[in-house]
Amino acid sequence: MDYRIEHDTMGQVNVPADAYWGAQTERSRNNFKIGPEASMPREVIHAFAYLKKAAAQANNELGVLSTEKSELIGKACDEILAGKLEDHFPLVIWQTGSGTQSNMNVNEVVANRGHVISGGSLTDESKALHPNDDVNKSQSSNDTFPTAMHIAAYKLTVENTIPGIKTLRDTLQAKSTEFANIVKTGRTHFMDATPLTLGQEFSGYVQQLNNGIRAIENALEMVRELALGGTAVGTGLNTPAGYDVLVAKKIADLTGLPFVTAPNKFEALAAHDAMVELSGALKRVAVSLMKIGNDIRMLSSGPRCGIGELIIPDNEPGSSIMPGKVNPTQPEALTMVAAQVMGNDVAVSMGGATGHFELNVFKPLIAFNVLMSARLIGDACVSFNDKCAAGIQPNHEMIGQHLENSLMLVTALNTHIGYENAAKIAKKAHKEGKTLREAAVELELLTSEQFDEWVKPEDMVGSLK
Amino acid sequence: MDYRIEHDTMGQVNVPADAYWGAQTERSRNNFKIGPEASMPREVIHAFAYLKKAAAQANNELGVLSTEKSELIGKACDEILAGKLEDHFPLVIWQTGSGTQSNMNVNEVVANRGHVISGGSLTDESKALHPNDDVNKSQSSNDTFPTAMHIAAYKLTVENTIPGIKTLRDTLQAKSTEFANIVKTGRTHFMDATPLTLGQEFSGYVQQLNNGIRAIENALEMVRELALGGTAVGTGLNTPAGYDVLVAKKIADLTGLPFVTAPNKFEALAAHDAMVELSGALKRVAVSLMKIGNDIRMLSSGPRCGIGELIIPDNEPGSSIMPGKVNPTQPEALTMVAAQVMGNDVAVSMGGATGHFELNVFKPLIAFNVLMSARLIGDACVSFNDKCAAGIQPNHEMIGQHLENSLMLVTALNTHIGYENAAKIAKKAHKEGKTLREAAVELELLTSEQFDEWVKPEDMVGSLK
Amino acid sequence: MDYRIEHDTMGQVNVPADAYWGAQTERSRNNFKIGPEASMPREVIHAFAYLKKAAAQANNELGVLSTEKSELIGKACDEILAGKLEDHFPLVIWQTGSGTQSNMNVNEVVANRGHVISGGSLTDESKALHPNDDVNKSQSSNDTFPTAMHIAAYKLTVENTIPGIKTLRDTLQAKSTEFANIVKTGRTHFMDATPLTLGQEFSGYVQQLNNGIRAIENALEMVRELALGGTAVGTGLNTPAGYDVLVAKKIADLTGLPFVTAPNKFEALAAHDAMVELSGALKRVAVSLMKIGNDIRMLSSGPRCGIGELIIPDNEPGSSIMPGKVNPTQPEALTMVAAQVMGNDVAVSMGGATGHFELNVFKPLIAFNVLMSARLIGDACVSFNDKCAAGIQPNHEMIGQHLENSLMLVTALNTHIGYENAAKIAKKAHKEGKTLREAAVELELLTSEQFDEWVKPEDMVGSLK
Amino acid sequence: MDYRIEHDTMGQVNVPADAYWGAQTERSRNNFKIGPEASMPREVIHAFAYLKKAAAQANNELGVLSTEKSELIGKACDEILAGKLEDHFPLVIWQTGSGTQSNMNVNEVVANRGHVISGGSLTDESKALHPNDDVNKSQSSNDTFPTAMHIAAYKLTVENTIPGIKTLRDTLQAKSTEFANIVKTGRTHFMDATPLTLGQEFSGYVQQLNNGIRAIENALEMVRELALGGTAVGTGLNTPAGYDVLVAKKIADLTGLPFVTAPNKFEALAAHDAMVELSGALKRVAVSLMKIGNDIRMLSSGPRCGIGELIIPDNEPGSSIMPGKVNPTQPEALTMVAAQVMGNDVAVSMGGATGHFELNVFKPLIAFNVLMSARLIGDACVSFNDKCAAGIQPNHEMIGQHLENSLMLVTALNTHIGYENAAKIAKKAHKEGKTLREAAVELELLTSEQFDEWVKPEDMVGSLK
Repeated sequence: MDYRIEHDTMGQVNVPADAYWGAQTERSRNNFKIGPEASMPREVIHAFAYLKKAAAQANNELGVLSTEKSELIGKACDEILAGKLEDHFPLVIWQTGSGTQSNMNVNEVVANRGHVISGGSLTDESKALHPNDDVNKSQSSNDTFPTAMHIAAYKLTVENTIPGIKTLRDTLQAKSTEFANIVKTGRTHFMDATPLTLGQEFSGYVQQLNNGIRAIENALEMVRELALGGTAVGTGLNTPAGYDVLVAKKIADLTGLPFVTAPNKFEALAAHDAMVELSGALKRVAVSLMKIGNDIRMLSSGPRCGIGELIIPDNEPGSSIMPGKVNPTQPEALTMVAAQVMGNDVAVSMGGATGHFELNVFKPLIAFNVLMSARLIGDACVSFNDKCAAGIQPNHEMIGQHLENSLMLVTALNTHIGYENAAKIAKKAHKEGKTLREAAVELELLTSEQFDEWVKPEDMVGSLK
Repeated sequence: MDYRIEHDTMGQVNVPADAYWGAQTERSRNNFKIGPEASMPREVIHAFAYLKKAAAQANNELGVLSTEKSELIGKACDEILAGKLEDHFPLVIWQTGSGTQSNMNVNEVVANRGHVISGGSLTDESKALHPNDDVNKSQSSNDTFPTAMHIAAYKLTVENTIPGIKTLRDTLQAKSTEFANIVKTGRTHFMDATPLTLGQEFSGYVQQLNNGIRAIENALEMVRELALGGTAVGTGLNTPAGYDVLVAKKIADLTGLPFVTAPNKFEALAAHDAMVELSGALKRVAVSLMKIGNDIRMLSSGPRCGIGELIIPDNEPGSSIMPGKVNPTQPEALTMVAAQVMGNDVAVSMGGATGHFELNVFKPLIAFNVLMSARLIGDACVSFNDKCAAGIQPNHEMIGQHLENSLMLVTALNTHIGYENAAKIAKKAHKEGKTLREAAVELELLTSEQFDEWVKPEDMVGSLK
Repeated sequence: MDYRIEHDTMGQVNVPADAYWGAQTERSRNNFKIGPEASMPREVIHAFAYLKKAAAQANNELGVLSTEKSELIGKACDEILAGKLEDHFPLVIWQTGSGTQSNMNVNEVVANRGHVISGGSLTDESKALHPNDDVNKSQSSNDTFPTAMHIAAYKLTVENTIPGIKTLRDTLQAKSTEFANIVKTGRTHFMDATPLTLGQEFSGYVQQLNNGIRAIENALEMVRELALGGTAVGTGLNTPAGYDVLVAKKIADLTGLPFVTAPNKFEALAAHDAMVELSGALKRVAVSLMKIGNDIRMLSSGPRCGIGELIIPDNEPGSSIMPGKVNPTQPEALTMVAAQVMGNDVAVSMGGATGHFELNVFKPLIAFNVLMSARLIGDACVSFNDKCAAGIQPNHEMIGQHLENSLMLVTALNTHIGYENAAKIAKKAHKEGKTLREAAVELELLTSEQFDEWVKPEDMVGSLK
Repeated sequence: MDYRIEHDTMGQVNVPADAYWGAQTERSRNNFKIGPEASMPREVIHAFAYLKKAAAQANNELGVLSTEKSELIGKACDEILAGKLEDHFPLVIWQTGSGTQSNMNVNEVVANRGHVISGGSLTDESKALHPNDDVNKSQSSNDTFPTAMHIAAYKLTVENTIPGIKTLRDTLQAKSTEFANIVKTGRTHFMDATPLTLGQEFSGYVQQLNNGIRAIENALEMVRELALGGTAVGTGLNTPAGYDVLVAKKIADLTGLPFVTAPNKFEALAAHDAMVELSGALKRVAVSLMKIGNDIRMLSSGPRCGIGELIIPDNEPGSSIMPGKVNPTQPEALTMVAAQVMGNDVAVSMGGATGHFELNVFKPLIAFNVLMSARLIGDACVSFNDKCAAGIQPNHEMIGQHLENSLMLVTALNTHIGYENAAKIAKKAHKEGKTLREAAVELELLTSEQFDEWVKPEDMVGSLK
């Protein structure tokens, strides 16, 4: 491989000849060989591009950066956002806990790419942009990384996670309406219980997801606050007056998202409780998805030896010998994602709790896990929706059979023949394996016609229907 | 021990003669010998008392329970709330996952105590109140336990947790103001960094706690929704029209807290995401408290070989030979509590995720852990506040010594003698173990007077002060 | 309440007149009002009693404590072990993280009780034993608390946890043998699969528990190592030569358990990885118990609308109207315990990871959670065993019906009529809701007699039977 | 893109023309768009290659597969192991929970690649190998995925994780020996304590890692057991006699690792407790690494305002203005990894606990997290070792200064001038900010010479040195 020589304050470094990164990135590549290469999430890199462009604009507007440099920085950032420079961010998550090296990676790529855009060459002695003095102007790794983390998390959550959940929620809502008149047996303690409608059952899932969306949106109120402008320790040293408010506005303009400057920069550097809260909200949704995924797979179990009340789409060959064995593969993916998000939340909390003094140094860990959780929930909801939920059909035969068999329907007789007599019927039916009707008629407590008139499951699904 | 004989649908049971509980409670005592006795949280028992009284009033108002019975139930509940019947709730957390047996424990105690209040005796054949038909009227364990859980969690959180956090927050706010002009060295990566004020440092803690309170309050919006009225599976079977709204209003009146009926009873029985969310909010605060507790203990470390910038109250003898060794015992308790709450959150999430169909059966587990977390955070904040935070004093000598020694102050010289020269000073000082002033003067780059004029840490704490 | 005045190096303290504890315990009571009183686990207090007695014997044997004092200490410790002094240990878990105050609580109670045993009075100026100089001789809180924690955890695990698991394991083994010839449908992905025997199904549970016991026993190899002799920082300052080995031997003799001195006292004070490992092993068992508990409740679900292949004992009234509704209350308690242990493990890990330098100061947290987990697993296994597992019976009718209905049996025809024809039968049966036999005969691919001869589920349960 | 048409039992699928995968892989690609592509860990794919080759050999040896086919399968597998077919495994983790689709992916690639190796073309109607009938012979996804998971986990752990930990352990052992005579102040509760040697302090880390290796090795005893031979539900249906033992031996031969057949196949399919246990052992090591990483960063904090007793290598430019600010970047990466592993363990436990009946369907989740943890610990230990631990040097000046200043040394005077007088010295020194020597001489309790003779920290580091 060809190399060029780059310098930093510690001396010379060999950098691959056509890489836009510089000396500090290369040092980090060599110093941190932990896990797969280039694992720093792309969302963070792209968020940095918004940040660097916004900072250049703010610095220019406040008179500390030339228009020419500001525009060059903007152009390089646009290329990052367009995905043209993906190969130039080789660093891993498991680096310095402030994410300094990824901040420098972006600084170096923007400076070098900007220089090339301006007509220069990577081997020029003097360059149009300096990674620190220009691209990183009025910034510190300590305030840029948390800002990029917030931008990335907010953006992914509103563009992927929430829409994914809403897609699934809408489908479940439509199914709830569609199934509003399908009366079925309820189950509590995994045991037969009094009836409800299939629509009511699905309405619970809808409520869970609506509440989950609300929790995520509450958390996002904190995530939209940006640390930028705090610089090294939160005091804003080396920033022009008004910079923090202006740069947040620039980021809001560029992203179209409602970012604001954080009211307290000391908190914004030293703690990442906003990310902990977002992770917690995602975990809350994961808990809901685990319940929903489990219910769907259990309700569709069978085809002969399970519950079998739902029919889910058949997306893949099951066993080659066993038609009708539709494995609930989408619920399985969904519940695996839920378990992952629950684990990620512990990692985030652990990292959030272990900051010291003016800086939390678990930033890349926190970013990685929150972004993974946000991505997985969004993607998994869409996959589960498209390939499973949207195609769910009731198995009317099984639903009817279970409902008719359920001994819990005897409750309806209490007001007609009294509790004691109703209990006699239920006990006989259970003991002798008969239907309630058979038991009732054999006991001569009522006629078959009366049974039909009095035992109407559809009247038992209640005022809350 | 003396016994009396009680009956339930399974037959006779020997119950201690003077116990107000009945057959079902006694069966549970014998069937679940797991962990210490009577471990079901008292807050749940008391919440049940509010619930039973409110249900009796609502049932009476809706014409399904006599005024006499309703008042008897109310009197027995008042005694529970007054703490007069504590010995009559012997059941453990680790029982049926619906908490049915604790619901029956309350039903039996209220019925028996009500009967005795009305002039009867525990051994009377016929009693003034029936545990199921009267005390449990228009209810099911499936909707009462989650309701009691919400009442208990809401009440404890607003009466203990939030006030505790606010007490600490107020003290830290006062300290932040008091310390507004104490300039000190910052620390990032646990390493010396540019200065800030001690007031700024504490302002970050204040912000953390303010955000934490906000997260708890957001979660409480869900916890104030009550499942009561859903009965067995959420359909409200066997409840009079309007009951769910009315009984929630009665509970709100009795407790003085803004409870409302849950908009979807299916979700309210089958999932406990609201409790998962509250647990997550408490965990978020725990993460903050871990950071704050660690900072305080590290900043007060020493007295000779640590950081030593804070002086914390001396509450206990440290080593008998070592005056000045003030162990940071309150931060230690606080951070242990934080770790516990983080673990509890995993238990709650696990329980919340593992519900099936119409009923989550991890209710007692969820109640236990959320209440423990809420109690511990509230108590620990007050303890830490009263015995530590309120008495924190700056160690001006150490703060001044560190600030003066910090090589980071050299930053201030950049604009006067240029970055290169400033760097020379810092390097010489570091290498030779000298002060910046000494190094500067020896290098003849500036005079001692110029150093004093230009290097003013108080000018470096910034626009965000 | 009456008080007497006690002194420590910080001055006077009012102590309840008849309390055996002294000034330092009283200070801790007042300084740490976090959670319920006296929450420090009794197992730790009792372990301290073994420790103090053993230390007194070792000190006497090594010539640094008189025989008279050693014997007095031993007598007071014996009373603690006999449960006679339970009211004299009022401190909470949430105190100093070294557990110093509980060590002092024991020192004070032993000294005062010893003095009273010797004929003295609590108000005597001069006493027969000094809490620090005599009872705590050759010790520091820093090595006593971890030692007591190990003694308590080891003892509880071998006396309660492992026997509880083995009791359940033995029952499941007996059931596995009893059910060896009951052929039933398998289920994978919650869907019908090829058959196995009920005995084989239960043999998997047995294997899980055997492996779990092995993991616990591996962890105990570390827990039996004791920190005692390390004193304040691990160097053994102020201990006589040979003390660490001797005192471990004394503890082993007194408890009848194989304790040894830790090979490295620095690790034994600064880290509690042995407890983290034990917690992890208990968590592994919890994971197994969650699986087993879930399987049992799902296999016994019904009675009419579930799987219903197992009949579990009916320990409590279910719904008063619904005979046959046996709620799986024991599996519910078991799985709640499993979730708790999984949460506790996170708290323990968090505490274990957050030690600094020569001392981990999350000791009481770690002790509390490990002991809770050990207790709950042991108790819950016994409860589940006695009240559920031991009474499990197969529901032959449901097992047979499911097996006969299972379309997976068609696999057996492959070798007789070819895969293609077998698949035709399965498809027709599934589509038309018929039995395999019906479909086969209608397709004229084989006779009813041939079906009986060739489709024998008992021949499909394999070489691994 | 060019496509060819492939078939499975559900019909036709368009597959990229030069992909070796077939219809079922393509369906999965389209059905599971969750997270980044091709996320199924490479270690699992490579483990499958060993498995398929071993199965082919065993099938051949037992007479159910021709030598020609067996050798073709072996050749294709060798190419996978040589990394030549990496682009042909496009599936994600978040698929069916049995990993069936990745098993089929391997079956299809091996069959197609084998056919091409034998001279055929991807578009041939008839092929030399059938994915199910030949490559998957005597197998089911249900036993192959857990087998591949165990092979991958065992191999990675013994080849990467344990060597990484041992590398670090050896360096810390060497440092412990090197630092054996450097006496320094101890710290408990983050406060000054009695002295120990730096070598003793490091010996604790060595012990932690030795115990951690032991825990991992204990867990590996379970991981070396392979499910293969259990097929669909554990009964071994459709396997030739002796197959399970033989195929495990073949895998052992091919990998050079001590794999054996699992003693109970039902447990091996339905539960993944062995993986839970391994994850728990890795988490135990993570807890240790968090402690070690924190200690090193705190001990090297400064350079002027921290503890500063260790000097760690300077790998990257810190702040450009601040020479001597060596950020502890390697400890930061190490502790982030530790937090990740702690979170992963929760995900694994959650997945392990949620299996049902004959099959755990959280297999890919479990494999992903355990492999990530094993990889990260191994890599991070090596990185931390090479770039930090190996270069740690004591800062003799700071160590000496702290030791001399420590008031705890006064303990040494107890035996010469009595406890009371020693305490007077310590109190005066603390109050007036003097050295012990100054205070002692000023109080005229001893001479400066006596102080030198009696106060020798090197005599306080004890019998356990």
